[in-house]
Amino acid sequence: MPKLNENYLNLKESYLFSEIANRVNKYKKENPDKNVISLGIGDVTLPLGSEVIDALHEGVNDLSKAETFMGYGPEHGYMFLREAIVDYYKRNGVDITAEEVFISDGAKSDTGNITDMFGPGNVILIPDPTYPVYVDSNMMNGREITYMDASEKNDFLAMPDKNVHADIIYICSPNNPTGAVYNHAQLKEWVDYALENDAIILFDSAYEAFISDPDLPRSIFAIEGAKKCAIEFCSLSKTAGFTGARCGYTIVPEDLKFTSSTGKEMSLNAMWNRRQSTKFNGASYIVQKGAAKAFTKEGMAQCQENIAYYKENARLIAECLKEKNIRFYGGINSPYIWFECPNNMESWDFFDYLLNNAQIVGTPGAGFGKNGTHYFRLTSFGNRENTIEAIERLNKLL
Amino acid sequence: MPKLNENYLNLKESYLFSEIANRVNKYKKENPDKNVISLGIGDVTLPLGSEVIDALHEGVNDLSKAETFMGYGPEHGYMFLREAIVDYYKRNGVDITAEEVFISDGAKSDTGNITDMFGPGNVILIPDPTYPVYVDSNMMNGREITYMDASEKNDFLAMPDKNVHADIIYICSPNNPTGAVYNHAQLKEWVDYALENDAIILFDSAYEAFISDPDLPRSIFAIEGAKKCAIEFCSLSKTAGFTGARCGYTIVPEDLKFTSSTGKEMSLNAMWNRRQSTKFNGASYIVQKGAAKAFTKEGMAQCQENIAYYKENARLIAECLKEKNIRFYGGINSPYIWFECPNNMESWDFFDYLLNNAQIVGTPGAGFGKNGTHYFRLTSFGNRENTIEAIERLNKLL
Repeated sequence: MPKLNENYLNLKESYLFSEIANRVNKYKKENPDKNVISLGIGDVTLPLGSEVIDALHEGVNDLSKAETFMGYGPEHGYMFLREAIVDYYKRNGVDITAEEVFISDGAKSDTGNITDMFGPGNVILIPDPTYPVYVDSNMMNGREITYMDASEKNDFLAMPDKNVHADIIYICSPNNPTGAVYNHAQLKEWVDYALENDAIILFDSAYEAFISDPDLPRSIFAIEGAKKCAIEFCSLSKTAGFTGARCGYTIVPEDLKFTSSTGKEMSLNAMWNRRQSTKFNGASYIVQKGAAKAFTKEGMAQCQENIAYYKENARLIAECLKEKNIRFYGGINSPYIWFECPNNMESWDFFDYLLNNAQIVGTPGAGFGKNGTHYFRLTSFGNRENTIEAIERLNKLL
Repeated sequence: MPKLNENYLNLKESYLFSEIANRVNKYKKENPDKNVISLGIGDVTLPLGSEVIDALHEGVNDLSKAETFMGYGPEHGYMFLREAIVDYYKRNGVDITAEEVFISDGAKSDTGNITDMFGPGNVILIPDPTYPVYVDSNMMNGREITYMDASEKNDFLAMPDKNVHADIIYICSPNNPTGAVYNHAQLKEWVDYALENDAIILFDSAYEAFISDPDLPRSIFAIEGAKKCAIEFCSLSKTAGFTGARCGYTIVPEDLKFTSSTGKEMSLNAMWNRRQSTKFNGASYIVQKGAAKAFTKEGMAQCQENIAYYKENARLIAECLKEKNIRFYGGINSPYIWFECPNNMESWDFFDYLLNNAQIVGTPGAGFGKNGTHYFRLTSFGNRENTIEAIERLNKLL
């Protein structure tokens, strides 16, 4: 009999968003006449800009003719896209090289698969609350997790504890789910801690494009020393509306080298390259064509129009919560608004309350960790009309 | 210091096809005037059919308008594509359900990532020669591999040895690299062996569309009992020319259940669903739209035109080898021709010999295992003109 991976038995039965989908589907089935507004899953709703659309069509056309047909591409990603990303970072004041950029089908794959790079016995720090993939992907490997508290006490921005040694640290900024954003000094403290502990920071910058405050870092590599201790994951999902088109990228610095137990030098850039060329065959050529366009000045200007639209939604939701004197985080430099459930309600109870009484779907904070037990996440990714309608319903209900 | 996955130190420095690319690039640089013909990497060259192209454009158009915009799709794959695959199997005489079909970005990802499902301590059987991903993905997990010989003695079709117990068995038919195809009775023997040993067959059917002999099984699920012991991996890469567009699928039967060490039932279908919904975010919507069209009768008729073209190439290469009295396998029901290197040459030497003297790139058998040391693989995926030119050069050289 095959020995299966029994770590799977320790996972919670279903992934947070599947559970939400189940509850919503049940409600909709029982209340087919109700107009349910989803501000739950962080999924974009605006169509792609014309620059990207044209490039996607071009990509399809290339596959229709023998002269321009593209077969297997580099597992690492096409150079035209990697260079477009390098240029985008440069415009944001950060220097990386094309050799450090790996294209994939999305940040979720990469943040999950990165666990392949590590052996057992690491002290792994994950903030609570957190994006569930960090936890589940480690649990699938039987890895122990050390949680660090993110709460009202630190404005949901966990900071290093010099008395705790860590080997691997997950940081997401702008944060999913809390919308909190680390400033330069705070990230510098993390980088210094990582260098001192010889640790690796796994930095998720999936929401960097929502930062408009020029003083806030949009990449961990804006911090001195980070190239010796950090990997950055990013995605076109929220930057360019690619949740359906699928494209992400991971930056693994060439300086990121450690020593094996037998004294051999191991380069994480080389290891990730080996992983991807063995267990991945590159992102779709069509999608990479579109993605490259998103990083041009013209393409990014269109992306930023969409982002501005979502941020106005966020501002409107935040304003409503302010008026109601409800404590909240995010809403600026982030598509997420994270607020305290009224009347000390627990978040799944508040989820059901909101669904049943206002037909609004949000995400219960408990799904992100114990520090989310009394918190709730709303996203700004709905369309304006729905968002305003939801705010009106909230205004009546709360 | 983080403990890295030191199993990576046991991997050969570079993936077979990267090594080939390096040697070819070096040769081209040193001989810029030479016309190098590649019959090496199994990559298609014909453009996609108009049915698929139209559907891909439609997919792009859907993303350009708010009314039809698609965000996150099901990690499992869109139902329209899963049902198209179920229907395709039905037309080929095999019953599967949409719940058993998982869409991905390619079979390489799935055959690599499937190792996530298994614990340590399994007896893993892999034929020698073999597609390198099976070996490398297991080595990355520190798993021990038991090789089974495929050679002239069994026409490169390894059969079960009743004296050896196995837990996990890799089978690829039509085989990459040898082009050998199992018949119904032979696969039945494997299924019976797996059922008796409570083992799992990981069946790679990436080349099933090249089978024209109606007596040869195109799916492991054409064999009675296979739903209790097999997972099937397939891809649109060779079926529909999607090596650049990227789409594959994996069939995990709902009946595939085993017992944990603590006596709990574990369903591989549920585990794979959990793995994919945690570490994957679905294949591109655009690509899935195109893929669904490939499985319609009209779409598949266009795919089969391309396949017929490649098979004619294979026939021409096989004819040349026959005339030269060179022992070969494949070439029928397969895009690959696997032949003995002349004069007992070793395969990397023959690779260099062929590159230097006939400017033909093939794949040295040694890259697939020790039983390939004196063998060489050519593919039929070139265009006709190049293939004929390559045959003329071979005719002169051999």
